Amino acid sequence: MAPIYLAIIGLGGVGKAFLSQLAALQLGSITKPTVIFASRSSKQLYNKDYTSIDASTLDSSSSPLLSLSDLTSWLASAPGKVILVDNTSNQDVADSYPSFLENGISVVTPNKKAFSSNLKLWDDIFSSTTPSALIYHESSVGAGLPVISTLKDLTATGDQITKIQGVFSGTMSFLFNTFSPVSGSGSGKWSEIVSQAKDAGFTEPDPRDDLNGMDVARKCTILARLAGLKVEGPDSFPVQSLIPKALESASSASEFMQKLPEHDQEMESYKEDAAKQGKVVRFVASVDVQNNKVSVGLEMVEKDSPIAGLKGSDNIFVFHTKRYSSSPLVVQGSGAGGEVTAMGVSADLIKAVERLS
Amino acid sequence: MAPIYLAIIGLGGVGKAFLSQLAALQLGSITKPTVIFASRSSKQLYNKDYTSIDASTLDSSSSPLLSLSDLTSWLASAPGKVILVDNTSNQDVADSYPSFLENGISVVTPNKKAFSSNLKLWDDIFSSTTPSALIYHESSVGAGLPVISTLKDLTATGDQITKIQGVFSGTMSFLFNTFSPVSGSGSGKWSEIVSQAKDAGFTEPDPRDDLNGMDVARKCTILARLAGLKVEGPDSFPVQSLIPKALESASSASEFMQKLPEHDQEMESYKEDAAKQGKVVRFVASVDVQNNKVSVGLEMVEKDSPIAGLKGSDNIFVFHTKRYSSSPLVVQGSGAGGEVTAMGVSADLIKAVERLS
Repeated sequence: MAPIYLAIIGLGGVGKAFLSQLAALQLGSITKPTVIFASRSSKQLYNKDYTSIDASTLDSSSSPLLSLSDLTSWLASAPGKVILVDNTSNQDVADSYPSFLENGISVVTPNKKAFSSNLKLWDDIFSSTTPSALIYHESSVGAGLPVISTLKDLTATGDQITKIQGVFSGTMSFLFNTFSPVSGSGSGKWSEIVSQAKDAGFTEPDPRDDLNGMDVARKCTILARLAGLKVEGPDSFPVQSLIPKALESASSASEFMQKLPEHDQEMESYKEDAAKQGKVVRFVASVDVQNNKVSVGLEMVEKDSPIAGLKGSDNIFVFHTKRYSSSPLVVQGSGAGGEVTAMGVSADLIKAVERLS
Repeated sequence: MAPIYLAIIGLGGVGKAFLSQLAALQLGSITKPTVIFASRSSKQLYNKDYTSIDASTLDSSSSPLLSLSDLTSWLASAPGKVILVDNTSNQDVADSYPSFLENGISVVTPNKKAFSSNLKLWDDIFSSTTPSALIYHESSVGAGLPVISTLKDLTATGDQITKIQGVFSGTMSFLFNTFSPVSGSGSGKWSEIVSQAKDAGFTEPDPRDDLNGMDVARKCTILARLAGLKVEGPDSFPVQSLIPKALESASSASEFMQKLPEHDQEMESYKEDAAKQGKVVRFVASVDVQNNKVSVGLEMVEKDSPIAGLKGSDNIFVFHTKRYSSSPLVVQGSGAGGEVTAMGVSADLIKAVERLS
């Protein structure tokens, strides 16, 4: 049987965790794929004759740079099937997926951008797949949690998704579980909690990249499309930004953090309103398939709902379907981090290798 | 490409739901497999020349009966790959899996018996698989919930399972969520709740088949083995039966139900002890991989734990692993019923067809 080749783009946090999982991957009687290409930022490592490389030596040795289109041609000519693992969040690489697939190169990736940008890219990607040019992207939503695979299984076996709801961001989960807990009244002002989360590394370096809701909107876009909705993009439905209007023009993260306390009262009164109704505040993503409505934003939720009961920085995905109508199918757990994101990628790689072998 | 053939054993509740899902299965560009054999109880339908049959006509037309070994030989000679779907809970069929696999026939099934009987059968099954004789059994635990696939992905990508806990029986879930709810003190005596559940069809026709804990023990056995423990069988670890000692010799289900109220006090005092500690009672399954201990039985659990918070007859599976150490990966939802069990089978069938195509 012809060997299966692996090309790996991106060796940051997720990429490094992926490499270590790859070394220990359990493929049963199937031959492990041969790594022939690795890249990070502006470094690449490969042998023109497709012989195996040691991706971990990329930092110390490198090869002449190939453009994405050169890379595509070179991989397309490999003497065996090729799987490209894209561990970046790069839009240019994502934009190349249709071309990779058309050239018979399978793609395995956690890169959200490929599936949450304009609908044309989505259509181009999925119309370019064939039984030998596959695409797998479990970790594009909820990292290693079985979210994409579960949704695909539900729809492919004929279930009807009525609604998908949940908390799709570990950062938002942490912020609101702390700010508006089910028991007690919370242990700080909104701005203090954001500041603590930033210091602990629970937010992006610039917390506005979490607070604008776009990360959640991208995940909603992916789930909505998989559930059958024609969503144009993450900016084509209502997304509530938690960046106060007056701070939209802040020139830096530090200016933003400095001025955020001036707006604590808005969040505080929303929380108090919720408390009066016996509810808590959560940043909820909602894909209402039945009514073709997608939305992301603050909601007051019942204290005994699974969404309210989240702990730490856990994500939760609640699938309401025709089959799971009396009670929903729920998947919950850590939805971010190098190890669990790489796990989704590695598990997808196994599935791709099994199908291509 | 050679066609893929399908043989279906068992056309009861799960089998009928499976047939209707099969009719609507979304396989993308892959050709749908051809049904060449269907059987139910002592009826079989097939054409000797492997031409397609209509399984839904089994009741009105049938063919000369083949033994399991005749069936194996006949399927092994089919002019293409064969997938056998076993929708029964029959031990004899389960015992034939190694032989099916050795003859190149893949198996897709919800039949718990194949994976929870003696360890030799388990070993024989998994040592007989090849890249063209596959086995998939998602619905053997938790029906269509992503339990087996998640556990396999975790271990195959190198995670270390430390503990799997949960409520693995819809019947037990319903009984204890009603008997010992998180809010309030419950709305009836133990025997009354069992009786209501029986009348509503939430238990087996003979409730002792649920109360003896063996169904949960079988699911524990499967998960423990997948997590790497060498469990001899469902009777090789402590399983607490909820059939009072004095009623073990009851000659019928009705005698059992009649005498159960005499034993309400035992359950009541256990519930009161739990309440004194601010806890509730649940029938908990536990696979402690780290300490090589498997157990099934009553436990007092914290009210704010995910296990306590279950609703209705939901199952919950809580995976504690090295990667999911700060908070576990949780899968929750309905774990029984024809539609959701068939869904697990159909989703597995898609995976098998994708690999064999």
